[in-house]
Amino acid sequence: MDELERVDAYWRAANYLSVGQIYLLDNPLLTEPLTPEHIKPRLLGHWGTTPGLNLCFAHLNRVILQREQDMMYVLGPGHGGPAAVAHAWLEGSYSERFPEVTRDLAGMRRLFRQFSFPGGIPSHAAPETPGSIHEGGELGYSLAHAYGAAFDNPRLVVACVIGDGEAETGPLAGSWHANKFLNPRRDGAVLPILHLNGYKIANPTVLARIPESDLLDLMRGYGYRPHVVSGDEPRAVHAQFAQTLDTVFDEIAEGGRPPMIVLRTPKGWTGPETVDGLRVEGTWRAHQVPLGGVRDDDGHRGLLEDWMRSYRPRELFDAEGRPRASVSSMVPAGAYRMSASPHANGGELLRPLSMPDFRDHAVEVKTPGTTFTQPTAVVGALLRDVIAANPRTFRLMGPDEVDSNRLSSVYEVTAKAWNAATDEVDEHLSPDGRVMEVLSEHLCQGWLEGYLLTGRHGLFTCYEAFIHIVDSMFNQHAKWLEAARKIAWRSPVASLTYLLSSHVWRQDHNGFSHQDPGFLDVVMNKKAEVVRVYLPPDANTLLSVTDHCLRSRDYVNVIVAGKQPVLDLWPMEEAITHCARGLGILPWAGTDEGQEPDVVLGCAGDVPTLETLAAAALLREHLPDVRVRVVNVVDLMRLQPPSEHPHGLQDAEFDALFGVDKPVIFNFHGYPWLIHRLVYRRAAHPHFHVRGYREEGTTTTPFDMAMLNDIDRYHLVMDVIDRVPALAAAAAGLRQEMAAERLRARAHTRAHGEDPAHISGWRWPY
Amino acid sequence: MDELERVDAYWRAANYLSVGQIYLLDNPLLTEPLTPEHIKPRLLGHWGTTPGLNLCFAHLNRVILQREQDMMYVLGPGHGGPAAVAHAWLEGSYSERFPEVTRDLAGMRRLFRQFSFPGGIPSHAAPETPGSIHEGGELGYSLAHAYGAAFDNPRLVVACVIGDGEAETGPLAGSWHANKFLNPRRDGAVLPILHLNGYKIANPTVLARIPESDLLDLMRGYGYRPHVVSGDEPRAVHAQFAQTLDTVFDEIAEGGRPPMIVLRTPKGWTGPETVDGLRVEGTWRAHQVPLGGVRDDDGHRGLLEDWMRSYRPRELFDAEGRPRASVSSMVPAGAYRMSASPHANGGELLRPLSMPDFRDHAVEVKTPGTTFTQPTAVVGALLRDVIAANPRTFRLMGPDEVDSNRLSSVYEVTAKAWNAATDEVDEHLSPDGRVMEVLSEHLCQGWLEGYLLTGRHGLFTCYEAFIHIVDSMFNQHAKWLEAARKIAWRSPVASLTYLLSSHVWRQDHNGFSHQDPGFLDVVMNKKAEVVRVYLPPDANTLLSVTDHCLRSRDYVNVIVAGKQPVLDLWPMEEAITHCARGLGILPWAGTDEGQEPDVVLGCAGDVPTLETLAAAALLREHLPDVRVRVVNVVDLMRLQPPSEHPHGLQDAEFDALFGVDKPVIFNFHGYPWLIHRLVYRRAAHPHFHVRGYREEGTTTTPFDMAMLNDIDRYHLVMDVIDRVPALAAAAAGLRQEMAAERLRARAHTRAHGEDPAHISGWRWPY
Repeated sequence: MDELERVDAYWRAANYLSVGQIYLLDNPLLTEPLTPEHIKPRLLGHWGTTPGLNLCFAHLNRVILQREQDMMYVLGPGHGGPAAVAHAWLEGSYSERFPEVTRDLAGMRRLFRQFSFPGGIPSHAAPETPGSIHEGGELGYSLAHAYGAAFDNPRLVVACVIGDGEAETGPLAGSWHANKFLNPRRDGAVLPILHLNGYKIANPTVLARIPESDLLDLMRGYGYRPHVVSGDEPRAVHAQFAQTLDTVFDEIAEGGRPPMIVLRTPKGWTGPETVDGLRVEGTWRAHQVPLGGVRDDDGHRGLLEDWMRSYRPRELFDAEGRPRASVSSMVPAGAYRMSASPHANGGELLRPLSMPDFRDHAVEVKTPGTTFTQPTAVVGALLRDVIAANPRTFRLMGPDEVDSNRLSSVYEVTAKAWNAATDEVDEHLSPDGRVMEVLSEHLCQGWLEGYLLTGRHGLFTCYEAFIHIVDSMFNQHAKWLEAARKIAWRSPVASLTYLLSSHVWRQDHNGFSHQDPGFLDVVMNKKAEVVRVYLPPDANTLLSVTDHCLRSRDYVNVIVAGKQPVLDLWPMEEAITHCARGLGILPWAGTDEGQEPDVVLGCAGDVPTLETLAAAALLREHLPDVRVRVVNVVDLMRLQPPSEHPHGLQDAEFDALFGVDKPVIFNFHGYPWLIHRLVYRRAAHPHFHVRGYREEGTTTTPFDMAMLNDIDRYHLVMDVIDRVPALAAAAAGLRQEMAAERLRARAHTRAHGEDPAHISGWRWPY
Repeated sequence: MDELERVDAYWRAANYLSVGQIYLLDNPLLTEPLTPEHIKPRLLGHWGTTPGLNLCFAHLNRVILQREQDMMYVLGPGHGGPAAVAHAWLEGSYSERFPEVTRDLAGMRRLFRQFSFPGGIPSHAAPETPGSIHEGGELGYSLAHAYGAAFDNPRLVVACVIGDGEAETGPLAGSWHANKFLNPRRDGAVLPILHLNGYKIANPTVLARIPESDLLDLMRGYGYRPHVVSGDEPRAVHAQFAQTLDTVFDEIAEGGRPPMIVLRTPKGWTGPETVDGLRVEGTWRAHQVPLGGVRDDDGHRGLLEDWMRSYRPRELFDAEGRPRASVSSMVPAGAYRMSASPHANGGELLRPLSMPDFRDHAVEVKTPGTTFTQPTAVVGALLRDVIAANPRTFRLMGPDEVDSNRLSSVYEVTAKAWNAATDEVDEHLSPDGRVMEVLSEHLCQGWLEGYLLTGRHGLFTCYEAFIHIVDSMFNQHAKWLEAARKIAWRSPVASLTYLLSSHVWRQDHNGFSHQDPGFLDVVMNKKAEVVRVYLPPDANTLLSVTDHCLRSRDYVNVIVAGKQPVLDLWPMEEAITHCARGLGILPWAGTDEGQEPDVVLGCAGDVPTLETLAAAALLREHLPDVRVRVVNVVDLMRLQPPSEHPHGLQDAEFDALFGVDKPVIFNFHGYPWLIHRLVYRRAAHPHFHVRGYREEGTTTTPFDMAMLNDIDRYHLVMDVIDRVPALAAAAAGLRQEMAAERLRARAHTRAHGEDPAHISGWRWPY
């Protein structure tokens, strides 16, 4: 049997196994005629994309065998899950990962039955699928994932099948330009295979319906050398695809402009041509399950049987259900199998970061609350050292915001990855740069996901408000982690860490559109096991938190930290202790002196902490007899009960900090209800009064922003007076004075365009 | 003075006014040498993009004057706010909207002073900016907004300036293909002007650094006729730009392949060439404020003065600060001024929808809880009639999900907009279609925003989980509405209504990646005045809610409704009452008979309501002496106090429904803490026990999904037993039986692949 016949056999075997998964409960090899009992009661899955995916697998295997090419795959149409599973089963890796699903008749029966079946496996490529780093559920991120996987893997080719539906999404459309950020000498190659099967769920696709000259111009415009493979006659397509792949892999080996393939084959190819008089093959009607009612409709069941037999299963599998030599000869050896690629189970390849000592960057704090430092500038120096110590396994992603977020120290040891033209005025651009700056949060997120899932490390820095752009990508990645943690063979990967700066309270240049701290609320909806949120209020706590996050595994860490100068609050060792505890009392700021307080001032976030300290100082000055306790929270998860989150504080500890019946004025960085959500099971909850961002803002001064949202020092003092019953009358004058201070501050700001010096330059008054 | 000299004068005037806004508190016409007191203490804003935007304004005005062309503008680089404001002031529309900012010296002083100043205006184009529908803060959506504005405005040309930074974003990259969805005979034209000034905040841009042949291929690939205007010598650029615009507008008039312009001019053009020995003009250093420290540094202040005087202000403005004829002759008349376009204050043009009577689609409900209907299929028929009755002012947007969400009735009267090739197998495609289907949530959202803000109506239907893709766009639109409501001259526009279906509980074909009800949490972070959330649990309530939403103004409405058959619960008139109240008791389902209940079963969402009813039936059967009240919530906002939301129920009403000390088992569609967040100020809150989605899911049966998250009927009965003290011992046996039912259901599901018939076919047992 010649090579292309064996490719065809492999393809037919994968198609057969795909159809079997969608339809069959039993009788996997059709050893008897199909009866209703053999058919699943609920027919769930997506056939349309599957034969195209299987075709790619078969042909890529030929290349791997021929060239001993290290290759992995990313399937944009991951909803074609049956294809990925069939492929892994044919390659034997499925049985290696799931020994109960043997590569024989019993295993085939189990393989079919479990698909989209309660207690079985999902209908999509998923963490459960060997060889996959890409769910494909949401669509749009395949090419970004593929590039992320290829970075720093110089011998790897990542084949990325992009569906023509997915190609309409913005993130995918923007991903093509990733070739300007890949260095062929240091990185691997990405081979995009744009699969034009012509239809989405219910519509034709744009790229399948524009003139081919436009399509080729588009691909050339994106910087690729396009090659077209097109047809609906298998033999001809096999020949053309094989020849094209030979050319393409030669081109990859030669370097230069990267190739890509346009693959035009019918949707649901080799499936039923027509059903009930309607054309199905080659149309949107093949998208999910092309033949319905197969259990009850003898005619449809007959069509299914004809369809499955059209693959000639007896030629493909022996009587025990094992793939025959014609098929198995197309399976590469060991880790060359794409379904067994160690890159696709990146934790296997993961090596801990070489971590420089963050204490080397400690800010000296002789007297807390008296000196100012830009926290992100300090952590920039730490990141510089991390990059220097890990020159091939760590990348920093930023949507053109690394400098703006004050992390510029990294450019002392590296540059920004850039593989397009340069100009003499440019700074810090190099094909070898470890910093990835592109004005696309989607690309930053997708690259980093791909990079982490293939066993490397990184950090994504972003303006706080605009991280919402990737809410849904975060959701999908968190879900991946949630599922992967339950799969024994999925080794832990490095956490995805966000450093959000240029936050809601300090958007001096921009204003309302740039003010949104709500990403934290999105994050909190995902499982407690995978999410962590930190709000370090000064440079030393930021150093400690960042070190902790970069060492962690299988989490999403969110760090919110300011880039503007803030008060230094803890010497390094105390900062480490504070971060380890996650929250704690600032004894020097309070007046409770270890006794039960009259009021607790809680705070989380740098600007709210500053205002809380200023309020505490005002209270100390004006109401020295009121016992005030100041509690700062760095690790937001500590506020929850341990039943809700592994970091949750025991009730006794929580009560010891916040009391059970004393007013708590909590000044929060984000939307106030998040604190309520976290503490609503606590005894003190009825006494919590939370201040935070309440969607008021514009381009104005920092203190005006605080006042617009009532998180300012004066308002906090007013809150204390309002909440401590004994003060209602006793401090009425002070309350009026505080209200007057607010008016004076606003008047000053509007007259002079800047905050009064006694506010902007405020420090703790020893 | 010849035309291009006047264009140049207009450009210089706009540039002068832009620089003045960024820098000056006083001395607007430089009638005396600049002193520190004339300079703002905080220099905020973005100069880099501004001269390019001003150049476009000047040249487009020439075209408008010459052709009497109806035109509006969308500025992608909306952070170049000074340009938009300068233009509106030169055109007189700024003074019309803000009479205190006169078009004279005093007004110019005020114009300068207010920019990015406390109590003044934002640094970006914003709702405050006459002529703008586009904030530009986040970047990525300008081209989608422009297309949305052009739809159904056949005489309009929307000029859309796209920055080369923005062009790197995914949503923008995907937006170019919008030309396949625009019908030149019915719609207006979009003229994209890709402004390559070469740099973002701190980096070169991709499109400015690829070979020009690639760039032109890319634009041709997107389906445009590209024209290049390039240079850094004003006179030559003026000539080339004018000639190109003449060609381009001829091409637009002729029809056919749409033109676009690539405009290459230096970033920060005409600003300081070098500052402190570093090149600024034409580099990223010109992005924000090219000259810092101007108050304190005499040298820099001198440079600023030289820079401003380089525009020769005395040639442009008379001694009273009024634009001279050379400038004002470039201002079109009345509504031809882009800054006064009625399209950009769409509420002025808004006409109410002609609303067919939704009661015509009422489902007959003789006995509540006994018949099944697919709610979205019913509302599809209503939307069909809305489309038929409003053939030029309503569009339905969907990311290839209109059919999947069961709204297919709309195709009885219209088609999907499609202006690319067609095939004989296609259905419902036409250049005139009113349904916009593209596999891009970003495009759907952007088009609809553009369409609504220019005075039309629409609805966006989407899978619930994937609406998170546009979280950030929603945020920006909500912020636009929040700000616009405070601006007297901004007339109300039609609300943006989402119909989210294929929701978390019924993702039968897909599974975990498609399960996320968290958009509601994102929505709730925006101001109560602009957000509304509805969870109608049956067809008649969905009809009533949809009618209400389509009539509303200036809101974002979120409707979550299932596409699968659900129990019909209210006859039409009762459904209307229920929706008007927003929540209410289902008397037939409870056993409280108007008395104080022992337990309240609350529910919101179709699947949770079904399970709640089934639990109520079990309780009625097994514990007939327990007084159970069933409360369904359609309008989620009703749960909040009136201090938090205008829909908020008074405490007395809330207490009357939910009690103050009785257990409330609340079964919720989304993440459970949202209910806690809404009710935490209520007396009954300590007694609320909320069930909802807790991030458990896969491809499985509907009842298994309910069980995975403990929202199922059996678990609700167990919850009641656990929460009503008297039942702890008395109903221990029933509790065990319920737990056993769960195990039996799961075993059945895993054996047979479908839910037991007594569950899937359950109806109210009269």
